[in-house]
Amino acid sequence: MKRLAILGSTGSIGRQTLDVVRAFPDQLKVIGLAAGNNSSLLAKQIGEFRPEVVSLAGPGKLPSGTYKQVSPEEVATHPAVDLVVVATSGIAGLAPTLAAIGSGKNIALANKEVLVTAGEIVTAEAKRSGVAIMPVDSEHSALWQCLWGEQGSEVARLVLTASGGPFRQRPLASLAKVTAAEALQHPTWQMGKKVTIDSATLFNKGLEVIEAHWLFNVPYERIEVVLHPQSIIHSLVEFCDGSVKAQLSIPDMRLPIQYALTYPERWQNPQLPKIDWRKLGPLTFEPPDMGRFPCLRLAIETGRRGGTCPAALSAADEVAVEMFLSGQIGFLSIARLLERVLEEHPSVPRPSLDEILAADRWARRRALEIGEDLAKRRLSQR
Amino acid sequence: MKRLAILGSTGSIGRQTLDVVRAFPDQLKVIGLAAGNNSSLLAKQIGEFRPEVVSLAGPGKLPSGTYKQVSPEEVATHPAVDLVVVATSGIAGLAPTLAAIGSGKNIALANKEVLVTAGEIVTAEAKRSGVAIMPVDSEHSALWQCLWGEQGSEVARLVLTASGGPFRQRPLASLAKVTAAEALQHPTWQMGKKVTIDSATLFNKGLEVIEAHWLFNVPYERIEVVLHPQSIIHSLVEFCDGSVKAQLSIPDMRLPIQYALTYPERWQNPQLPKIDWRKLGPLTFEPPDMGRFPCLRLAIETGRRGGTCPAALSAADEVAVEMFLSGQIGFLSIARLLERVLEEHPSVPRPSLDEILAADRWARRRALEIGEDLAKRRLSQR
Repeated sequence: MKRLAILGSTGSIGRQTLDVVRAFPDQLKVIGLAAGNNSSLLAKQIGEFRPEVVSLAGPGKLPSGTYKQVSPEEVATHPAVDLVVVATSGIAGLAPTLAAIGSGKNIALANKEVLVTAGEIVTAEAKRSGVAIMPVDSEHSALWQCLWGEQGSEVARLVLTASGGPFRQRPLASLAKVTAAEALQHPTWQMGKKVTIDSATLFNKGLEVIEAHWLFNVPYERIEVVLHPQSIIHSLVEFCDGSVKAQLSIPDMRLPIQYALTYPERWQNPQLPKIDWRKLGPLTFEPPDMGRFPCLRLAIETGRRGGTCPAALSAADEVAVEMFLSGQIGFLSIARLLERVLEEHPSVPRPSLDEILAADRWARRRALEIGEDLAKRRLSQR
Repeated sequence: MKRLAILGSTGSIGRQTLDVVRAFPDQLKVIGLAAGNNSSLLAKQIGEFRPEVVSLAGPGKLPSGTYKQVSPEEVATHPAVDLVVVATSGIAGLAPTLAAIGSGKNIALANKEVLVTAGEIVTAEAKRSGVAIMPVDSEHSALWQCLWGEQGSEVARLVLTASGGPFRQRPLASLAKVTAAEALQHPTWQMGKKVTIDSATLFNKGLEVIEAHWLFNVPYERIEVVLHPQSIIHSLVEFCDGSVKAQLSIPDMRLPIQYALTYPERWQNPQLPKIDWRKLGPLTFEPPDMGRFPCLRLAIETGRRGGTCPAALSAADEVAVEMFLSGQIGFLSIARLLERVLEEHPSVPRPSLDEILAADRWARRRALEIGEDLAKRRLSQR
């Protein structure tokens, strides 16, 4: 029996994690749930999964029951918990994750910002506490599965695949006019809004490069991105002898979630879709066009630069995406905004947690100012 | 330093094995070489690799030197040898392989007939002697690499890929008139003549299904064949959670050969080609048409039937392919001949080695008679 705490239980990954728990009632048990604002869904989850501890960050009333209402950190560090699923988004997931690591919990990590903003601190803490950080992202789960049993010293390259999002083939000149509704039409994955927009700009893939760097301890010059529009091959590992291993599946987040929960085992789950080789269409590959996807280039450069740059970039992107979704700035302004924030950011090398959080706050403030400036210019051009 | 004996050193796989040895002069050492008839190439190999023992089955003179001329079995069991590369073809490889296993040598197996004809005996002997049988075939090497670190009990299916050979799309009505020269034009692999014809009929893929059954202890109903004309994905393993692992490379036999020699390590070899994801064309998949490829169906059925059936079928195919290559029978008669031999074959369940060898002799004789009959009818129809 594995005993779980799920941080972000009402989000897309949290709900799918509970789907997996439903499939294995005798092997998986929910000890703790933490949510942001969706109190009505959290209330339903409490009724169904009967956790011992619950956290609700936002307002709203929860039904009375046998559980205790506590902080997210207390959910993450509850003594009965074996594995903490970090399914939150944004830098808010960082403190509870570090708390969980500090109290010796294994981590199933779906929150990109944790490693992007504080990769050095988090991986060092995990090493010191002897806990495993298991990726939940489909790409990192694929890399992890392909690396299983292999020697890190024999890895030549990690190759992350990217669908290329909805604008892979759209005429460049029309990208300025792209609407939020268009950008939210992801060709292969159903995801939350923020990550869907980040997939349209490929910013998301840049963050994944940074995550892969920290998760697998591979230098940036040996991490590559290739577009694979069908999202069947979730990533590949090339070894020093020229052999390549790939992990494939029908796109369904429940598979990488389940693998992180069941690792080092694999459990049969009839609900998960199977590839039918008789019906599978062609699998294609193409290099990403860095001119079309400047956010990808920016994110990877930021990872290489290190320090507080990734934290600043990630915070700026949250602001930029929100302003794009609310129609304040255009699609191409996301990259412009990120570039300007990055140019101005006074990076701190090997930052402390406080310095990372300060960079995050600084970048949000500055991104908002730059975004408002871009929004004004946009209005004046109409 | 790994010390090798190579049985069949002058054949296609033998020569490529020596190519790999050339790339690692400090890590790989040739102790023994055994060849069939190509005495002049063997003489060159002796001069270059300075083995301690040599075997030449056919006539011809070898240069004098510091080596001893012995039997293939003595090459395979020489006390200084760690690993025996079985790169012979046909049932002649069976006795030296069993001798090597009996004397505790690990086996790098390229000879299909060893497991096809005597899978039960060979795997039982290997288990008893505590030796590893490492596949050299690209498909089985792919499966082996994908299974590395995984639990056998969590395997849902093995999926062997097949290029489909030169006749995958050729109009069915024209197959009767196919010439040996056409059948020898394999689209993706450079191989010996026998295996190239077996790839055109997909008989080869049927034998590989039988081999996979014995190598990985997976029942036939969980082994599948899918056509993949590009020969980039060399095979796939589907696990019980729906996750699939694939092994990919540019088609080059030196890679699986090298992996069998270096296992459990991977060694960097700049001579081996690397996949360039920026240039890779679409990867496609389609089910094999059993009407077009009756030899595939026959071989798999024969594997399921077991006993001496695979030995008889394999022997009959050697005769049939030779008669096709020499122009005596047509391409479609290969399957007809196999079917008739199989119908008449009195299979012995759980056969001894002698019974396997007897089935081989019986099938050769009968195949020749049936082949001559088919040849006569063909002449009379002209």
